[in-house]
Amino acid sequence: MKEAIFKGIIAYPITPFDVNEKVDISLFKTLVERLVQSGANGIAPLGSTGVLPYLSDEEKEAVTEAAMQQVSGRVPVLAGVSCLTTERTVYHAKFAEKAGANAVMILPMSYWKLSDDEIFRHYNTVAKAISIPIMAYNNPATGGLDMSPVLLKRLLQIPNVTMIKESTGDVQRMHSLRKELGEEVAFYNGSNPLALAAFAAGAKGWCTAAPNLIPGLNNKLFEAVANNNLKEAQDVFYKQLGLLQFMVGKGLPRVIKAGLNIQGVESGYLRSPLAVLGDEETAQLKQILATLN
Amino acid sequence: MKEAIFKGIIAYPITPFDVNEKVDISLFKTLVERLVQSGANGIAPLGSTGVLPYLSDEEKEAVTEAAMQQVSGRVPVLAGVSCLTTERTVYHAKFAEKAGANAVMILPMSYWKLSDDEIFRHYNTVAKAISIPIMAYNNPATGGLDMSPVLLKRLLQIPNVTMIKESTGDVQRMHSLRKELGEEVAFYNGSNPLALAAFAAGAKGWCTAAPNLIPGLNNKLFEAVANNNLKEAQDVFYKQLGLLQFMVGKGLPRVIKAGLNIQGVESGYLRSPLAVLGDEETAQLKQILATLN
Amino acid sequence: MKEAIFKGIIAYPITPFDVNEKVDISLFKTLVERLVQSGANGIAPLGSTGVLPYLSDEEKEAVTEAAMQQVSGRVPVLAGVSCLTTERTVYHAKFAEKAGANAVMILPMSYWKLSDDEIFRHYNTVAKAISIPIMAYNNPATGGLDMSPVLLKRLLQIPNVTMIKESTGDVQRMHSLRKELGEEVAFYNGSNPLALAAFAAGAKGWCTAAPNLIPGLNNKLFEAVANNNLKEAQDVFYKQLGLLQFMVGKGLPRVIKAGLNIQGVESGYLRSPLAVLGDEETAQLKQILATLN
Amino acid sequence: MKEAIFKGIIAYPITPFDVNEKVDISLFKTLVERLVQSGANGIAPLGSTGVLPYLSDEEKEAVTEAAMQQVSGRVPVLAGVSCLTTERTVYHAKFAEKAGANAVMILPMSYWKLSDDEIFRHYNTVAKAISIPIMAYNNPATGGLDMSPVLLKRLLQIPNVTMIKESTGDVQRMHSLRKELGEEVAFYNGSNPLALAAFAAGAKGWCTAAPNLIPGLNNKLFEAVANNNLKEAQDVFYKQLGLLQFMVGKGLPRVIKAGLNIQGVESGYLRSPLAVLGDEETAQLKQILATLN
Repeated sequence: MKEAIFKGIIAYPITPFDVNEKVDISLFKTLVERLVQSGANGIAPLGSTGVLPYLSDEEKEAVTEAAMQQVSGRVPVLAGVSCLTTERTVYHAKFAEKAGANAVMILPMSYWKLSDDEIFRHYNTVAKAISIPIMAYNNPATGGLDMSPVLLKRLLQIPNVTMIKESTGDVQRMHSLRKELGEEVAFYNGSNPLALAAFAAGAKGWCTAAPNLIPGLNNKLFEAVANNNLKEAQDVFYKQLGLLQFMVGKGLPRVIKAGLNIQGVESGYLRSPLAVLGDEETAQLKQILATLN
Repeated sequence: MKEAIFKGIIAYPITPFDVNEKVDISLFKTLVERLVQSGANGIAPLGSTGVLPYLSDEEKEAVTEAAMQQVSGRVPVLAGVSCLTTERTVYHAKFAEKAGANAVMILPMSYWKLSDDEIFRHYNTVAKAISIPIMAYNNPATGGLDMSPVLLKRLLQIPNVTMIKESTGDVQRMHSLRKELGEEVAFYNGSNPLALAAFAAGAKGWCTAAPNLIPGLNNKLFEAVANNNLKEAQDVFYKQLGLLQFMVGKGLPRVIKAGLNIQGVESGYLRSPLAVLGDEETAQLKQILATLN
Repeated sequence: MKEAIFKGIIAYPITPFDVNEKVDISLFKTLVERLVQSGANGIAPLGSTGVLPYLSDEEKEAVTEAAMQQVSGRVPVLAGVSCLTTERTVYHAKFAEKAGANAVMILPMSYWKLSDDEIFRHYNTVAKAISIPIMAYNNPATGGLDMSPVLLKRLLQIPNVTMIKESTGDVQRMHSLRKELGEEVAFYNGSNPLALAAFAAGAKGWCTAAPNLIPGLNNKLFEAVANNNLKEAQDVFYKQLGLLQFMVGKGLPRVIKAGLNIQGVESGYLRSPLAVLGDEETAQLKQILATLN
Repeated sequence: MKEAIFKGIIAYPITPFDVNEKVDISLFKTLVERLVQSGANGIAPLGSTGVLPYLSDEEKEAVTEAAMQQVSGRVPVLAGVSCLTTERTVYHAKFAEKAGANAVMILPMSYWKLSDDEIFRHYNTVAKAISIPIMAYNNPATGGLDMSPVLLKRLLQIPNVTMIKESTGDVQRMHSLRKELGEEVAFYNGSNPLALAAFAAGAKGWCTAAPNLIPGLNNKLFEAVANNNLKEAQDVFYKQLGLLQFMVGKGLPRVIKAGLNIQGVESGYLRSPLAVLGDEETAQLKQILATLN
């Protein structure tokens, strides 16, 4: 069995910008600190929530370094390094390793659809260039490519590809993964509204931006599952479902930023073309958050 | 809260045919008896498994009456009465009530897509014509129409529409149903590979043809959930998942018929154009069943 | 090359009902007569427009006979005989042949998805039972099954399967059909908004309910194509596109019935659950029709 | 009516790489020259075929400048400038204008799905920063966003958004565009297998990589349409359809590169993760090309 570094709640910080749409590293550190203190079991900078693909090379490096400094070993760090080209992915994976990240997360990105062989070579090339583990990330909605359980099984033959993050939103994929790959496969859920179903299916952790807003409820769900208490898990899940659905429906960076504002936490600006939630949506979010406190 | 007559495992018998493709009522009764004795919490003749739409009016009546006689009150009976026209649906719903069915299941069927208003009127007309409860059944894959949670909520305003069966295969629909309709809504799972996720989401029962082949495993899953034992439920679920996926992939009537044959139980013939599994598929099924004993 | 009986505009009458939702044969004959006199190149009773699947066996027979009597050899007749079971399809195909139909149209219908082998056997069994030609009809939106060009090629190996009607709404299917099956394949378009693209792709005819409302424009499109006048065809097509899109969007039987009413032609009632267009939709249709006169 | 700079065949060069996966500007110029000399009515560097998103800022600039130098005013140049962020898109649009491009093409790119308002602001911000016309490009398969006819209509209200390129592969979109936007809208087809249907629908031009391999057939199709000769257009179209379908199925950069090799033209290397066609696919392509000579 391959070792799984991460379990439980793996929290995704946003990447905040200043009024000129420059990355605000100082505010980023503050937001990371909140996540660590709220009880997250891991921190994952430069994920989808962290708008990785919208950043320049230099910005990605600065964010990775800031995350490592702020977390400072209190929990493991999973750094996003996905790029469209293999060469840039290798570059950022090596940077993350050198900066001290515990693992890297890689989403195969599409402009041109990639064949299974192309995807395998992409992962294999990156994997050979680093010594830390890789989490293979499947998210057709953002990355544009859908990796089948068969391909994921093949990727797991690469020695340091040790974890899978599944974000299709279809729990049957997780069932197939576990059936195909065996009980010991370390798979993680990246689809927020599937949190309960994924844990029931055996997911080792939940990769989520929700702890920016509702860390207590997120932690309680994991605890109920760990305690084998299905009824409690169901109850805690339905409490937070409204927010999880809203996050996915409106886009994580937009909702987390707006939610932090509502909670009185500075959250900076977004980078265009991404724009803040409109007034009506903000009011909806306010109402959803109000019912959770 | 509306009363839910059914809970646990609601078992679907196939409708067997003789060599001339005529319904074999005697064999049907034998197969129903097996289901009752294996511990099913309810019996549902004339479902998709029972190839309802492939039968004539007279055949439907004969099957309904045979089911009532054989079950003889030991468990509740849910009779399928779905037809393309409202007039025929009313006719068979009244027949089922008179025959003693505890409830009827109605799938809105499509040749022409129906508007929400047309679907509502269809249910309302049938509901007014009978006194027993109705289970509204959503299964776009067979019926061709997908009822949204909003429409299902509207249908539940009809007094004797008291239960919902969800078969889209997307557990998020069940989450939305429960969120939209409240904790007390009686929803049932009709998608076999979702059995675990659906119970975790709060489904009151599992409508399934699987007890024709593996009643013990089906019952154990429901018991583990009822005992709030998530780990046991997960374990029992993964044991039977291979068969559940195969059943859905190849079509319930084909697989149940073939599986009964493999188990040495007479199962008759199918009605054309439905045809028996090929040799390769039968060998696959044999292998799957072998691992379950 | 197989002979193609039909070309140009093949017109679909609705099946009108009386106030008690019984088929109104007398009115049906009147509507068929209008289509013949308006210049249709063929008449196709019991199509989707004619709500075939909503009729009883006796009603189907009465409609077929009425169509033959009224058309009386002036143009060829294509009778719809699709049923869910092979046995009923054979029955109605034989009835249509005896009644004098020039060909039958068969849509493979789905409740349970059929395999390619099951579909082939279904057609082959019917084909052997009759001597007149068969038009194989592909329409996943109504029938629930999508026949690939490869399967259609296989069906054309059956001697009296001589024509294909394509209604997926994707012109690339027609391109593939012609590429796969050769220049001589007789394929027909059943997707109204594709009328121009299909003729450009080489379709021999257009199976359509539109001549109930705008026969002149339909005929002109075919003539422009026959005259190799692309610019004229484009012009005539865009004139009628609004109606064609509305027909498909709201459902053919509903729109034809409402449109005939608007034009002052008696059109009877629909059979439940199908319901008449609402006031707003009727007003839209009135406006579309007004621009065409 | 807004002026349309482009008509007919707008040809897309590939961006060739050397063995170290660096852009080979000299070879790029050679390939552009071939396109101009083969009779293309316009040249479009940095399209999907030119793997725009896989290039660095500096590479994009070098390619744009090289194209301008090589074309040298013989035909108009349409420069691709699409980027994920608004800021980078503005940057490259200004660069293209300064370099002398006649227009820029902009595809709204998705990682996070964009709202209609976000897309509108994106285009509007770029449009205000330049004086040359913009072609709005809709291609959900590569860009991940699908712009509705309603949104495209809104974009055309921006003064220098004057052209639309539609690449959904659904000719009904073009019908709706023309119906929604009027006869004078300048829309272009970007879906190769739709070339005939798009011209029949009124497309002003065909944006295609095919002239790298079969310029004669591409030009003949446009000429037949311009001569109002539908039968000839149909004939020429079916001759080239096999190649057009293969190009789309396997990915434009891979197929153009392989096809040039087969034709004895140097075409360089691809940038990873994009990889060359396998042996079997190359053999298929060889056979397709052989039938066209």
